[in-house]
Amino acid sequence: MLSFDDVLAARDRIYSVARRTPLQYSHTFSEMIGADVYLKLESLQRTGAFKIRGAMNRIETLSPDQRDAGVVTASAGNHAQGVALAATRSGVDSKIVMPEHAPISKVKATERYGADVVLHGADYNEAAERAHEIERREGRTYVEAFDDELVMAGQGTIGLEILDDCPMADVVVVPIGGGGLISGIATAIKARRPDARVVGVQAAGASSAAASLQKGSRVELDSVDTIADGIATRTIGEETFPVIEERVDEVVTVTDEEIAVAVTYLVERTKLLTEGAGAVPLAALLGDQIDVAPDETVVPVLSGGNIDLNTLTTVLMRGLIANGRYLKIRTVLKDRPGALLDLAGVIAENRANIYAIHHDRTSKDVAMNAAEVELDLETRGHEHVVELLDALEAAGYEVDILA
Amino acid sequence: MLSFDDVLAARDRIYSVARRTPLQYSHTFSEMIGADVYLKLESLQRTGAFKIRGAMNRIETLSPDQRDAGVVTASAGNHAQGVALAATRSGVDSKIVMPEHAPISKVKATERYGADVVLHGADYNEAAERAHEIERREGRTYVEAFDDELVMAGQGTIGLEILDDCPMADVVVVPIGGGGLISGIATAIKARRPDARVVGVQAAGASSAAASLQKGSRVELDSVDTIADGIATRTIGEETFPVIEERVDEVVTVTDEEIAVAVTYLVERTKLLTEGAGAVPLAALLGDQIDVAPDETVVPVLSGGNIDLNTLTTVLMRGLIANGRYLKIRTVLKDRPGALLDLAGVIAENRANIYAIHHDRTSKDVAMNAAEVELDLETRGHEHVVELLDALEAAGYEVDILA
Repeated sequence: MLSFDDVLAARDRIYSVARRTPLQYSHTFSEMIGADVYLKLESLQRTGAFKIRGAMNRIETLSPDQRDAGVVTASAGNHAQGVALAATRSGVDSKIVMPEHAPISKVKATERYGADVVLHGADYNEAAERAHEIERREGRTYVEAFDDELVMAGQGTIGLEILDDCPMADVVVVPIGGGGLISGIATAIKARRPDARVVGVQAAGASSAAASLQKGSRVELDSVDTIADGIATRTIGEETFPVIEERVDEVVTVTDEEIAVAVTYLVERTKLLTEGAGAVPLAALLGDQIDVAPDETVVPVLSGGNIDLNTLTTVLMRGLIANGRYLKIRTVLKDRPGALLDLAGVIAENRANIYAIHHDRTSKDVAMNAAEVELDLETRGHEHVVELLDALEAAGYEVDILA
Repeated sequence: MLSFDDVLAARDRIYSVARRTPLQYSHTFSEMIGADVYLKLESLQRTGAFKIRGAMNRIETLSPDQRDAGVVTASAGNHAQGVALAATRSGVDSKIVMPEHAPISKVKATERYGADVVLHGADYNEAAERAHEIERREGRTYVEAFDDELVMAGQGTIGLEILDDCPMADVVVVPIGGGGLISGIATAIKARRPDARVVGVQAAGASSAAASLQKGSRVELDSVDTIADGIATRTIGEETFPVIEERVDEVVTVTDEEIAVAVTYLVERTKLLTEGAGAVPLAALLGDQIDVAPDETVVPVLSGGNIDLNTLTTVLMRGLIANGRYLKIRTVLKDRPGALLDLAGVIAENRANIYAIHHDRTSKDVAMNAAEVELDLETRGHEHVVELLDALEAAGYEVDILA
C-alpha cells in the first residue's frame, strides 16, 4: 500500500515542472462556514490542475528504455495536459488519445504542451482502448490517471505543502473521482498529523467511493451524471480503495446545484476560476455536509480550474439562480400605451435590476388585446425574490417563474 | 509632490487590512510576449482591488476628531468597497454614496464591508454631489478616489512589493484611470530602481492621461467609452498629473477588443478573473504596444478582479470571437430531408464543434422551399475560420457571418 515515504520521494522529483501552489486564507469563506478556512489553490498549478504532479512522478521513475519508448494515455481532461507537459519537460515522447468530440480548447492545450494528440472514439472508453493498442504496438508505457502508486504519491505532495504552510490544519477536504488525489493527500496528512481529519467529496451523480465504503468493496456505477466532469468516474481504483478505506475519515456527496453555487462564489468573491470538480470541497462545506467547530482550521483543496468557457457561463447562471440572484419571469400585459412602463415601475420600486426584456405582441398563447413579456432580472437573494413576486401579484400581474 | 518616504510610511499603516499579493511567473505570457513575465496578482487583494491600500493609508492618518466624525465618499466601484472595509477595520464610521443603478452585487459587497450605503443620483457625478453635501453637513472627511497624496502613497506599496519579490524588474506596466495607482507605483519603482521603466496603459476610449502628457497640461474629455469601467475617467488628477509627467516613461492605449482578449486569456490560461481595467497592462503587452527585449523582466499589474458576472459573459464572448474561437453564421438550406445533416457533415469534416443550432422553416426572408439556419460554432482560430468558410462555400452554401 502507498506509504508516506513514497510521497516524500515524489517531492524530490516533481518540482522541476510542478508549481508549489499557494494556500490563501479566505475571510469570505471563514465567515460563511464558521471556521478558519484556507484555500489550497491547486487551480493555479501549471496546466490548471493537480494531475501534473502524479504524471511527473510516474515519468521521472521510468527506466532509460521506457523513457526512450515514450508514454501513452487516454484522457479528455486534466490528465492529458499533465502527462503532455510532464513528458515534454522530461524529454520523453508522449501520445495522448482524446475522444473525437473533446473540446477544441483542451485538444489545443494538450498539443501546446508537446504531446502528439490522437483523436479517436466516441467516448473515453473507446479512446482508452486505442491508447492500450498503442501501448502494445509501440511498447510505450501507459500512464494511469489514478490507479498507480507513483501517480498517487505525486498527488500526495499537495498534503505536504498544506502542512508546511498550515501545520494546524484540522480538516482537509478533497474531491474524489478515481481516488488518486485523496489517497496521496490522506497518506501525507495522516503520517504527519494523525489527528487531522481527511474528508472526501463526490458528486451525488458519481458517488462510487461512498457506495464502495458502505459495501466494503468496490462498486462500479452503471452511469454517471454530474457537471463536475473531472470527477465523473464510474468507479474508484483498485489501488486507491484500500488507502481510502484506511486513511479517509468520511466521504460526503454534493448536488450539481451546490457545485454551481460554489463555483459562482469562488469566481465572485475570490476571483478564482475553479472547475466543478475543484469546487466540491467548498460545496460540501457551504452545504453543512461536514462538521467543523468554530476554532478549527479547514483546508478545501481546489484541485483544478479547467472549466470550458461555455460550461462556465452555464454554471454561473445556475449558481446565480440557485442563490436567488437571477430571476427569469413571464407575465402578460394589457396591450395599451404605458403598460410596460407600469410593470417596469413596480420592478424599480422593489429595487430589482432589469437585464433584458422580451416583449411579444403576437404570441398565440395570450388574448388578442394582451401582450406577453419575459423579463430577466437581477435580484438580491431568495427573500428579495419573494418580496418582488408578492409586489407583482399585488399589482395584478400573473407571473410564471421561468428560472 | 508625492515622495518615496510617503510610500514607505504607508507601508507601516496598511497591512492590518490589506493583503501582500502574490507575484506569479507566467509561462504562458512569457512565451506569448517574448520576455520574462511576472503577474502582480492584485486582483487577489481583499475587496478584489488595490483601492483598499490607499483608503487605509488615508483613514489611518485621520486625526482623532476626524475619526470620530467618520468618512464619506462616492463610488460605483472598487473605491466604495476599499473605503468601506478600511473604515470598518479602523473603527471609523463610513457612508458611501452609490448611483441608484449601481449593480446590486457591488451595493451588497459595500454593505457587507460595513458601510452605510446611500443610493442617490443617476450617475457618478450626482452621487459625488450628494457625498460632498454629506461631508459638509455631517463634518465627515471625504476620501478621494485618487487625487490625494495619502491615497497615492498607499497604492505605491504595490511598487515596493514588486521590487521585493522581483528586484530585477525592468518594465512595470500599470493601468491609468485617475492616475493614483501609477503615481504611487512609479514613485516607489523610480526611487529604488531608476533604470526600470514604468509604462501606463489607458483604454482608447478614456485616454486623458495620454492627451494630457502630449499637451503638457491636464485634458478633460467630454465623454468616455470603454468596457473597462474601473478606468473610465474623464480626467487625471491635479496631484497625479505632475507625478506622472516626471516618473512615468510612456503611456499607451488599448482598444476594448484587445481588453476582451486579455481578460479571456487570463481566465482560460491562468484561471484568474480580472476586470477590464486590470487587464489593460497585459492587453498592451499582447498587442505589442510596449517594447520589451527577450532578456527583460516585465511586470503587468493586474489591479483588480471585480467584474460583474453579466459583463464577464459578454467580455468572454467578445474575446473568443476576436480570437477566431467562436463563430456565429447564418445560411439557407434546401428544405428537404437530410439537408441539415449534410451541413453538419461539412462542419464535422472541418473539425468545428457545434454549440447551438437555430433552425427556422418559417422565416420570411427565404424562399418558400428553403429554411434558414443559424449556427454557433467553436473554432480553432482565424485560419480555421477561413478554412471552414471556404469549405462551406465550396459545398454550395451562402454564409453570412453574424459574429
